[in-house]
Amino acid sequence: MKYSFKNDYSEGCHPEILKALAESNLIQQGGYGQDAYSQKASGLIRKRCDAPEASVYFVSGGTQANLLVVSAILKSYECVVSASSGHINTNETGAIEYTGHKILSVSSEDGKLTPDSILPVLEAQHNFPHQVKPRMVYISNSTELGTVYTRAELTALHRFCREKGLILFMDGARLGSALTSPANDMTLADIASLNDVFYIGGTKNGALFGEAIVVPNKNILQDFDFHIKQKGAMLAKGRALGVQFMRLFDDNLYFELARHAHRKASEMQVKMEDKGIPFLVAPSSNQLFPVLNMEQIATLENDFEFYIWKKTDDQHAAVRLITSWATPDDAVERFCKIVEKF
Amino acid sequence: MKYSFKNDYSEGCHPEILKALAESNLIQQGGYGQDAYSQKASGLIRKRCDAPEASVYFVSGGTQANLLVVSAILKSYECVVSASSGHINTNETGAIEYTGHKILSVSSEDGKLTPDSILPVLEAQHNFPHQVKPRMVYISNSTELGTVYTRAELTALHRFCREKGLILFMDGARLGSALTSPANDMTLADIASLNDVFYIGGTKNGALFGEAIVVPNKNILQDFDFHIKQKGAMLAKGRALGVQFMRLFDDNLYFELARHAHRKASEMQVKMEDKGIPFLVAPSSNQLFPVLNMEQIATLENDFEFYIWKKTDDQHAAVRLITSWATPDDAVERFCKIVEKF
Amino acid sequence: MKYSFKNDYSEGCHPEILKALAESNLIQQGGYGQDAYSQKASGLIRKRCDAPEASVYFVSGGTQANLLVVSAILKSYECVVSASSGHINTNETGAIEYTGHKILSVSSEDGKLTPDSILPVLEAQHNFPHQVKPRMVYISNSTELGTVYTRAELTALHRFCREKGLILFMDGARLGSALTSPANDMTLADIASLNDVFYIGGTKNGALFGEAIVVPNKNILQDFDFHIKQKGAMLAKGRALGVQFMRLFDDNLYFELARHAHRKASEMQVKMEDKGIPFLVAPSSNQLFPVLNMEQIATLENDFEFYIWKKTDDQHAAVRLITSWATPDDAVERFCKIVEKF
Amino acid sequence: MKYSFKNDYSEGCHPEILKALAESNLIQQGGYGQDAYSQKASGLIRKRCDAPEASVYFVSGGTQANLLVVSAILKSYECVVSASSGHINTNETGAIEYTGHKILSVSSEDGKLTPDSILPVLEAQHNFPHQVKPRMVYISNSTELGTVYTRAELTALHRFCREKGLILFMDGARLGSALTSPANDMTLADIASLNDVFYIGGTKNGALFGEAIVVPNKNILQDFDFHIKQKGAMLAKGRALGVQFMRLFDDNLYFELARHAHRKASEMQVKMEDKGIPFLVAPSSNQLFPVLNMEQIATLENDFEFYIWKKTDDQHAAVRLITSWATPDDAVERFCKIVEKF
Repeated sequence: MKYSFKNDYSEGCHPEILKALAESNLIQQGGYGQDAYSQKASGLIRKRCDAPEASVYFVSGGTQANLLVVSAILKSYECVVSASSGHINTNETGAIEYTGHKILSVSSEDGKLTPDSILPVLEAQHNFPHQVKPRMVYISNSTELGTVYTRAELTALHRFCREKGLILFMDGARLGSALTSPANDMTLADIASLNDVFYIGGTKNGALFGEAIVVPNKNILQDFDFHIKQKGAMLAKGRALGVQFMRLFDDNLYFELARHAHRKASEMQVKMEDKGIPFLVAPSSNQLFPVLNMEQIATLENDFEFYIWKKTDDQHAAVRLITSWATPDDAVERFCKIVEKF
Repeated sequence: MKYSFKNDYSEGCHPEILKALAESNLIQQGGYGQDAYSQKASGLIRKRCDAPEASVYFVSGGTQANLLVVSAILKSYECVVSASSGHINTNETGAIEYTGHKILSVSSEDGKLTPDSILPVLEAQHNFPHQVKPRMVYISNSTELGTVYTRAELTALHRFCREKGLILFMDGARLGSALTSPANDMTLADIASLNDVFYIGGTKNGALFGEAIVVPNKNILQDFDFHIKQKGAMLAKGRALGVQFMRLFDDNLYFELARHAHRKASEMQVKMEDKGIPFLVAPSSNQLFPVLNMEQIATLENDFEFYIWKKTDDQHAAVRLITSWATPDDAVERFCKIVEKF
Repeated sequence: MKYSFKNDYSEGCHPEILKALAESNLIQQGGYGQDAYSQKASGLIRKRCDAPEASVYFVSGGTQANLLVVSAILKSYECVVSASSGHINTNETGAIEYTGHKILSVSSEDGKLTPDSILPVLEAQHNFPHQVKPRMVYISNSTELGTVYTRAELTALHRFCREKGLILFMDGARLGSALTSPANDMTLADIASLNDVFYIGGTKNGALFGEAIVVPNKNILQDFDFHIKQKGAMLAKGRALGVQFMRLFDDNLYFELARHAHRKASEMQVKMEDKGIPFLVAPSSNQLFPVLNMEQIATLENDFEFYIWKKTDDQHAAVRLITSWATPDDAVERFCKIVEKF
Repeated sequence: MKYSFKNDYSEGCHPEILKALAESNLIQQGGYGQDAYSQKASGLIRKRCDAPEASVYFVSGGTQANLLVVSAILKSYECVVSASSGHINTNETGAIEYTGHKILSVSSEDGKLTPDSILPVLEAQHNFPHQVKPRMVYISNSTELGTVYTRAELTALHRFCREKGLILFMDGARLGSALTSPANDMTLADIASLNDVFYIGGTKNGALFGEAIVVPNKNILQDFDFHIKQKGAMLAKGRALGVQFMRLFDDNLYFELARHAHRKASEMQVKMEDKGIPFLVAPSSNQLFPVLNMEQIATLENDFEFYIWKKTDDQHAAVRLITSWATPDDAVERFCKIVEKF
């Protein structure tokens, strides 16, 4: 049977999480997030973020988190700035626009935004009230291209947003991967101090489902529970989210799972580099974009599933390989053996 | 510790479901509903509905199911008719209105709708295009008051809707309870043949979360997956929903869990009736609304949690008691012993 | 040819307004409301309202004014309270709901709201965040039934709204008629001091089109011009609105036109009262709802157009007769002659 | 006093239109578009379009027309393709997004779209249901840069849209100017046969306000009157729109007004070309974008108002000069005399 490197959500959840669900299963709890597990998980996250005043909300998935945050914060005529490759701009079926907001997109080679790349977009919006008002900057970490922000980069964005009156929102669907990347120099506390709102992705890092939205400064987002309910995002058994995040942050499980994915990606990366295979984007997380020739791709497809990302010329294409907390050693070994023969 | 009769979602899920999640946990599957479990679960439901052409979609909760169905089917100037006590009208934070649609409400003592109660509302909408066009009738079964529809009642609604060009939509958050009620004379296949769209509630009947939306006639609802994604309701690990419904409908588990809740409610009901306690609404499902005096309520509150539903006079109030698949025998025994002494 | 008493917008505009449009026609002005006429008109209205800090915005019609005000002020999970007969609730094709907001309706015999009638609706909203938050009270003056608010009534509503944290919004599509009614004891300045936002209807009182939204307290409504533009309500030639309101408020034209309508209505009312004809609602403005028998209705229909409002019994119906600034003396004389013979 | 070349809506309306409003002023008519003038105007437009089955709707402005057409035709997950310079994309405060729809933008030097420029955008949308479905192509004629479509270009777009299942929608805010341009080779009937929906702009071509939306094929747009009402765009005195378009199309007034604007623009263009002044975009309608040096700009600003459009280098900028039906001969003569001295 073929092993799939298509994404980091092909399996269920880490066994420890199933175990936590089982252990708490028959203990009665309040509904709609009013359960002891969600409260405990919130406390653990606040502590890890060094943000004792932060609000923490648990929702089911990334698109849901994105549309909730954007629509709850922006007024109807305000818009959000995103890299053109940003998930909200390309792969969420217009979820943000459905809530009424325009996305102003910024071209970006590596999926990251900088003050310099954002500035022209802001400056193009001046014919008020005939143009939308930029009010939020959306970034993802790690990005859709597997790149990660450094502290210097994020600090620059933070300052820029402060200066321009913009909310900085980090999509952390793959924040675990970002914070355990070799290219990373930040902690979760840094993330909390440099963003106005962000979320910690569970779905792509070992949870069955779930993202933890963190709002370090409560003032920017009030009555968020009304929004969650109104958009159909409030689970009756909110405990199912609480238990998962409680387990992920009870010890270092969240980070260990991400590190496993890095290790597996790194083994594959090293092997490919050894064979002189170039990468579309320099690898820094659990997403690899090697540029292979068609024969190599065909050979790998015998044993593995993965996406063809982008043709680079007539004979070559970049493919996307994603590892995860669940990637088994033997799959990577098999992969490396095949590459060895290229 | 007090036992809570507040609702039917105070515990996690039935242990068989956890077991199914564990057994399938590490098997790789496609994301976003493209997994073998969701497909198998869909097949089981189609079969049980005797609706081989039906489309089945799994989502996380009732409000989500409601807003998705209503907004996907109605044009912007069309509206939905609901009992004034309907969940969409009272307890979903305006989720339907957020998608742009008006709810026309119909007063109803028992939470049910009839052609006679709907007709005046339809007739009041005639000043087109200045009034909204009624296009859908929303009912719940069992209702928010624990009542259930009979085949005759549902058939009458079905015919009325056909005649008036209305879509009939049944909110089945508690459909398990309805179909196993002593007052029920329908099968799931009847439900499928008499409604245009409905959903089978998992959250309140043993699942960790999940509702299965069934569309017997595909023509009324196209491209529904786009809507699911756009509203943030498409889980990356759709398998988590598929596995649960696969297990619930693999055998009779879904109905057995509902029957357990009925048995427990029935024991409590019989005991209260023995003591001459009246009910706000004649009991027919796992929701009981006994009218107690203040002393009785205070006594019960020493051992149990439940909601005060409605004051009926200075000295009495109806309370709401809900049993579930998880209600243990001893909680009911304790309850009956206390009532015995009234 | 039949004369129509169907409504107060059957003709174009008062000749003085056409004249003002002609006189200013070829003078170049800035677009989108940045013209000298709009500014002058705003000043005249502010003065008449004794509200030097007020913001004034001109839009084309009542439904447009209503949806703009409601959607600009309310957050997505907040709702507006209206009489069940309120225009926003019955005759605007769900315009408010399209902007995402629920209307909580209050039964009202005479079309007016009182603190006592609103209170139960507020109290029924307590299960937060599962229910919408009441945030605004919508009233119309004169109402859809031709009734008008007294100072005492409006003051009571004003105080109630302050106490409950509610915005008080008056739909003044027929404010001219209200303020010149025999039942009225308020000035435009009273209206401005007792409401948080209201509008002065031009369309039904002599303008070709146009409503002037007045916000005495600027703080409750910021960046409103963005909303106006976004909803397609900002005319390139905003001057067309400015010139009309400039003319209406340059002297007492606005009130004189409304008084004419009252005088004509009063003549008809007196004649009908003389003949012992009862009224569905006691007349107090330019809308009359006499209860006639079928023969009388048929006789009147030979010479006039009007709406049958409501059957009152097998042999009788209330009809709606509306006079306006344009109602000619001879139409009323003809009407009275016919009634004389009843 | 300075003469303004800022835009084509600086004056009121053509005197003939005021005259028509005056002549019809006191004749009673039905409200909300049910008046004889609107019906007559519709007939005249249908005839001129050689489209006897067409539906015609009158609304107040361009942004209103755009948001109505797009939101009435598209399903919530469908999107519209526009040139990046398209009015809906840049200058309507996110009106389209407010109705829930994403705009996919296509870079365009001259403001026009071609099958070749659209195709890559369509091809990038393939990851369904995670991406929005392109369903409409929005073009403007003349464009925001004053360019006009040829029959060959529009036919190519028409065929492309047919083939791809796309609706072709032409924003004709300046359609009068387009159809009287020297670069034009189409009639209004061609426009009606090559577009699925379009509108004929009145506001920028002599009307006080008003755009006539034409739907040659009724099947693509049903119940549009409900949409018009719901979005606050249905004037009580729809006659005000009907009378204007009746007058504009009763004879050739609509086209004569546009021709006047061309003549005036042409005089200015010739004079500037004589002096070797280059143009940012080759002139073909009533919008001119000459590239001037800073001294020339300063000189012109002594006598005229106009927008600086775009800096082209340190010493030069393109300015935008717009003529209209109202541009007087002497303003153009003054302009030419000044340029003569450059």
